[in-house]
Amino acid sequence: MAKVKIGILGATSYTGAELVRMLAFHPNVVISYVSSQSYEGKRLSDIFPALAGINDRVLISPQEAQKWTDIDCVFSCLPHAASADLLVPIIGKGIKVIDLSADFRIKDISVYKKWYCDDKHPDHPAPHLIDKAVFGLSEHYREEIAGASIIANPGCYVTSVLLPLLPLYKSGVKIDMIIADSKSGVSGAGRGLKQNTHFPEAHENFSAYAIGHKHRHTPEMEQELSLAAKKPVIMTFSPHLLPINRGILSTIYINTNISAAECTEIIKKHYVNEPFVRVREASDLPQIANIVHTNYCDIAFTGGTEGLPVIAVSALDNLVKGASGQALQNMNIMFGLAETAGLLR
Amino acid sequence: MAKVKIGILGATSYTGAELVRMLAFHPNVVISYVSSQSYEGKRLSDIFPALAGINDRVLISPQEAQKWTDIDCVFSCLPHAASADLLVPIIGKGIKVIDLSADFRIKDISVYKKWYCDDKHPDHPAPHLIDKAVFGLSEHYREEIAGASIIANPGCYVTSVLLPLLPLYKSGVKIDMIIADSKSGVSGAGRGLKQNTHFPEAHENFSAYAIGHKHRHTPEMEQELSLAAKKPVIMTFSPHLLPINRGILSTIYINTNISAAECTEIIKKHYVNEPFVRVREASDLPQIANIVHTNYCDIAFTGGTEGLPVIAVSALDNLVKGASGQALQNMNIMFGLAETAGLLR
Amino acid sequence: MAKVKIGILGATSYTGAELVRMLAFHPNVVISYVSSQSYEGKRLSDIFPALAGINDRVLISPQEAQKWTDIDCVFSCLPHAASADLLVPIIGKGIKVIDLSADFRIKDISVYKKWYCDDKHPDHPAPHLIDKAVFGLSEHYREEIAGASIIANPGCYVTSVLLPLLPLYKSGVKIDMIIADSKSGVSGAGRGLKQNTHFPEAHENFSAYAIGHKHRHTPEMEQELSLAAKKPVIMTFSPHLLPINRGILSTIYINTNISAAECTEIIKKHYVNEPFVRVREASDLPQIANIVHTNYCDIAFTGGTEGLPVIAVSALDNLVKGASGQALQNMNIMFGLAETAGLLR
Amino acid sequence: MAKVKIGILGATSYTGAELVRMLAFHPNVVISYVSSQSYEGKRLSDIFPALAGINDRVLISPQEAQKWTDIDCVFSCLPHAASADLLVPIIGKGIKVIDLSADFRIKDISVYKKWYCDDKHPDHPAPHLIDKAVFGLSEHYREEIAGASIIANPGCYVTSVLLPLLPLYKSGVKIDMIIADSKSGVSGAGRGLKQNTHFPEAHENFSAYAIGHKHRHTPEMEQELSLAAKKPVIMTFSPHLLPINRGILSTIYINTNISAAECTEIIKKHYVNEPFVRVREASDLPQIANIVHTNYCDIAFTGGTEGLPVIAVSALDNLVKGASGQALQNMNIMFGLAETAGLLR
Repeated sequence: MAKVKIGILGATSYTGAELVRMLAFHPNVVISYVSSQSYEGKRLSDIFPALAGINDRVLISPQEAQKWTDIDCVFSCLPHAASADLLVPIIGKGIKVIDLSADFRIKDISVYKKWYCDDKHPDHPAPHLIDKAVFGLSEHYREEIAGASIIANPGCYVTSVLLPLLPLYKSGVKIDMIIADSKSGVSGAGRGLKQNTHFPEAHENFSAYAIGHKHRHTPEMEQELSLAAKKPVIMTFSPHLLPINRGILSTIYINTNISAAECTEIIKKHYVNEPFVRVREASDLPQIANIVHTNYCDIAFTGGTEGLPVIAVSALDNLVKGASGQALQNMNIMFGLAETAGLLR
Repeated sequence: MAKVKIGILGATSYTGAELVRMLAFHPNVVISYVSSQSYEGKRLSDIFPALAGINDRVLISPQEAQKWTDIDCVFSCLPHAASADLLVPIIGKGIKVIDLSADFRIKDISVYKKWYCDDKHPDHPAPHLIDKAVFGLSEHYREEIAGASIIANPGCYVTSVLLPLLPLYKSGVKIDMIIADSKSGVSGAGRGLKQNTHFPEAHENFSAYAIGHKHRHTPEMEQELSLAAKKPVIMTFSPHLLPINRGILSTIYINTNISAAECTEIIKKHYVNEPFVRVREASDLPQIANIVHTNYCDIAFTGGTEGLPVIAVSALDNLVKGASGQALQNMNIMFGLAETAGLLR
Repeated sequence: MAKVKIGILGATSYTGAELVRMLAFHPNVVISYVSSQSYEGKRLSDIFPALAGINDRVLISPQEAQKWTDIDCVFSCLPHAASADLLVPIIGKGIKVIDLSADFRIKDISVYKKWYCDDKHPDHPAPHLIDKAVFGLSEHYREEIAGASIIANPGCYVTSVLLPLLPLYKSGVKIDMIIADSKSGVSGAGRGLKQNTHFPEAHENFSAYAIGHKHRHTPEMEQELSLAAKKPVIMTFSPHLLPINRGILSTIYINTNISAAECTEIIKKHYVNEPFVRVREASDLPQIANIVHTNYCDIAFTGGTEGLPVIAVSALDNLVKGASGQALQNMNIMFGLAETAGLLR
Repeated sequence: MAKVKIGILGATSYTGAELVRMLAFHPNVVISYVSSQSYEGKRLSDIFPALAGINDRVLISPQEAQKWTDIDCVFSCLPHAASADLLVPIIGKGIKVIDLSADFRIKDISVYKKWYCDDKHPDHPAPHLIDKAVFGLSEHYREEIAGASIIANPGCYVTSVLLPLLPLYKSGVKIDMIIADSKSGVSGAGRGLKQNTHFPEAHENFSAYAIGHKHRHTPEMEQELSLAAKKPVIMTFSPHLLPINRGILSTIYINTNISAAECTEIIKKHYVNEPFVRVREASDLPQIANIVHTNYCDIAFTGGTEGLPVIAVSALDNLVKGASGQALQNMNIMFGLAETAGLLR
């Protein structure tokens, strides 16, 4: 079988580098180009010395990348707005794209504008393409993904919240409060330098940010939960910065009419054949160390005694199941490859 | 003025060592003895080389410690049950004691039994003394502490949850749901060796434990909140293990009839003259790095928009305001010393 | 081709678990059993929840493991003395073994006794087998490994010191002082609980231990360097405990008659076809982050100006190239498999 | 006694903030101003929320700071070149200054130029003042410091190397090779943002930089060692970046004519009355955790068996004894205060 020819935009981001590493050892693909605006002309392994011998290609400019035609699939690891801008002509050539930015995730353009637009980018760069995009939560949109030409790969926090909750809604469970208290490793904040991710300020520290109803991943969660609930869902989402490199753990409080044990049963049945979701017992709660560097999302349910909320705990690696791993899983689905290809390690 | 003569039981615990360090530089005290069952006969600075030159005393056995009479105040950093056992004869001599264990914190002995007793310790070691003990939350029991002979020093998590919530209840605010999602550094688990606090298993990891209504600090919180609310309060308490040495951050969700800004106002007014509580704005949420190695508890309120819960965020150092620092603050109050003596650094 | 049937002794050590993970995704092997004295009867994934879905086998006792006959290769991740003890009957059945302990590394039995024997184990458990064992430094003993039935897999520190130095000796370079200042992540100290690897004591700490000429990896290094130098070599070896999970970086000072640039040339030429040694420029020194979770050893040379020593810097993952990865590389060589099989990630 | 009036230039650096914290609780000083070019007009506690309630002063510009006259002592935490530039007029007013930059450390202006000057700063900003400056290694220049008007506070690495070696030279010990392999926490790299100190790149990493004879602290060490040796000393200095916030550990290899035990004796005798140097036994090597947040430098000697080098191990906190603590110790000496005032914690 001919190998799938891959291009990567934004290859020098953390998600880009993680994707390159996984694709390098994928049996059915070949990386045709890696692209970067800032580092054009340098080798990818100059920027990430860890990739020496794994991918030593010279980075091409996004403009040059847009001209490629002999390519089957383009991953974009660019920031929102920039991503859709660059992808439009690529999509126009009939090349399949997997966008790790938020640009095609939100179906309601007014919601997108509220959370993402500003004076610099007052409008969505490609409103006409939003409807063509499939939300790339592999376990819940597998069929649509198989036939899609544009994948809106979900946010890292989003995947950790939706995977435990969607099967409940889909099974008709009534939920009338959701509080997701999430904790993420620092790579989730990206490779750009900021004071709060400077080592001496993030290390031996822990902090909340954008808690309540302020973080940009909130509307994505609410959109998918509302779809599943068939009514508007509003929720509290509280992200925290965890002094580790990789991994998200979400502690999710819900008021519901069933017990934690019943939630576990529903979720186990729902994900029984899924290679990348592991449902655990309440006595064996998910931990970040168990999923780091893998494409697994681990889930358990507990709580719910004395009339208190049921608690879901989920854990995934923000750079793998939360980004590049799920993107690759989606690519496998789109191209009819084994869904686990390149993802076992 | 004569210096206060101090004895320390359990000096080789983390809280014991922290207490010794602070007392060593306190202008109004002298450490008469340090005691340890396991390390009797060794120097404290053999066990904690960091204390070389600061406290090089030979550790005496608890039995020998019990015989001392020329002493004004004994701190116990022993585990529950062992602590009350050893303190009874000391209290009998009229020596003031500050107990960092849970033994005297819980007023309802049946609640104590439910959470702390087991086959090995089926009963409370000193039920007749429970009523004499004052709950050592310095900011809320200052007058009682001043006249007390037994202080039940609060738990670390407990202090981080009560300091933001008690003033609301005391101001008549109606609260009808409490979820405290707390994260603690590993020193909170003590100096005893366990697999989950072995470096390679705790580092680059993050995990929930005893979440819902299972952790032993829950009844303490519920006792004090119920007292303040003048009705039974039940709450969700979810501790997590944070891969840092010291510090607790609690994210506390409450349903209430007032806004976050109003909560901030109440709390600011309540703590305006407190040297160790810093109320912060919603734009400047507490972070562990801001309080580590100090006796501060930082507090802020946010959230409450779109009908969602109000969120309190608090941060303190589990070994200082969460244990030894607050114990020392209580000692200062009991002996009429400046409340901040030995606590500024 | 029939798959290589594998047994693993000491599967619940860190090196054991790492080996299981790599073998689970190796295309040419099947794990026939995993064994553990302490956890017999439990599932491996009960002990390492990260392995759920990857290897959920029930651990068998070492005694039961010894009885297996339908097996091609046994890896031992046991401590020294215990390892050789258990391997003797397995070797007797003609099964190939790869021993990650020190038991078969040291050719001179008096040297072994000096460094490893004590009252509990006064003698080497299998002196008659020492000569049959091949030192498993893959890049330097490839031919011998291919035909070997017993592999003595090198120590982690040892590999980091020998890979940069052996090619110099083999090229006739004169070296008359060696100081290896090495720093290792905490997983190198194993899974057993000790006070100095308790999280709150190892984290935010850094310490030297067994420095000078005291660490048990010293005689191994000296043996191999002496063989290459064709004269007795004695060296300073200074290990340090680094507050990270995985990875070793060695800074090695040598007095020599050539420049750092010449060393780089020799080493580049020597390792030009090696898949797992990356020689770097002095401007791009090895870093632990570049090799962690991989089987690479990165090497560079610098220094040597103003008459000062030349400096080699090497980095590898103590659990991969320093232990289980190199063991698997050796297995690939022994069984005629692609040398990189199961090792690319 | 009137309090010493203090001004601080560069108060928003890590050394500045640490100095402010220590001075805030010093019984004999008052901070008259804190200054910052970048943050003029903001409160110091806006930049460092940890300092809320400790120092909430508004930062003044360096230009305004230069105009102050009612001041006894100015600390400069500015970078080299900028520091001397700003200090010249302050020194001109007869105000005592303690400069934490390198500007006044190096006596030979050609050496200063070689290591510090570039196109932007081709010359030393105040060559006429170099001779007036005293090298602020408190334990070795106490008398000169007492009478000085300009203190050149030593570098952090420098203090960790000189404290163990100077007493040997001063006792006539012959040393003919020095290799200092030093490891520093990330705060040593300052508060400015750089890719290699971005959390996800420094954490779980370890790397060497500027090793051999390239780091700017090398000439300072060589100057002081040469003075003590009464002949030119050249040495290898190899700094490494340690993934912790604070602390330096130096492992120093020397060829000498005496044993490690004899070195220990000499050093013990030399520092017997020093409050901030702790000499330890070879069985109790210095560790960073033992000195962090204190003004101690811990020192031990080991090695020297089998004709191999003697090894000194030293540890100090780069922000305290390596910078602000030693600066404050020097201030105490200059103003006739208790040398430990404000430094015990």
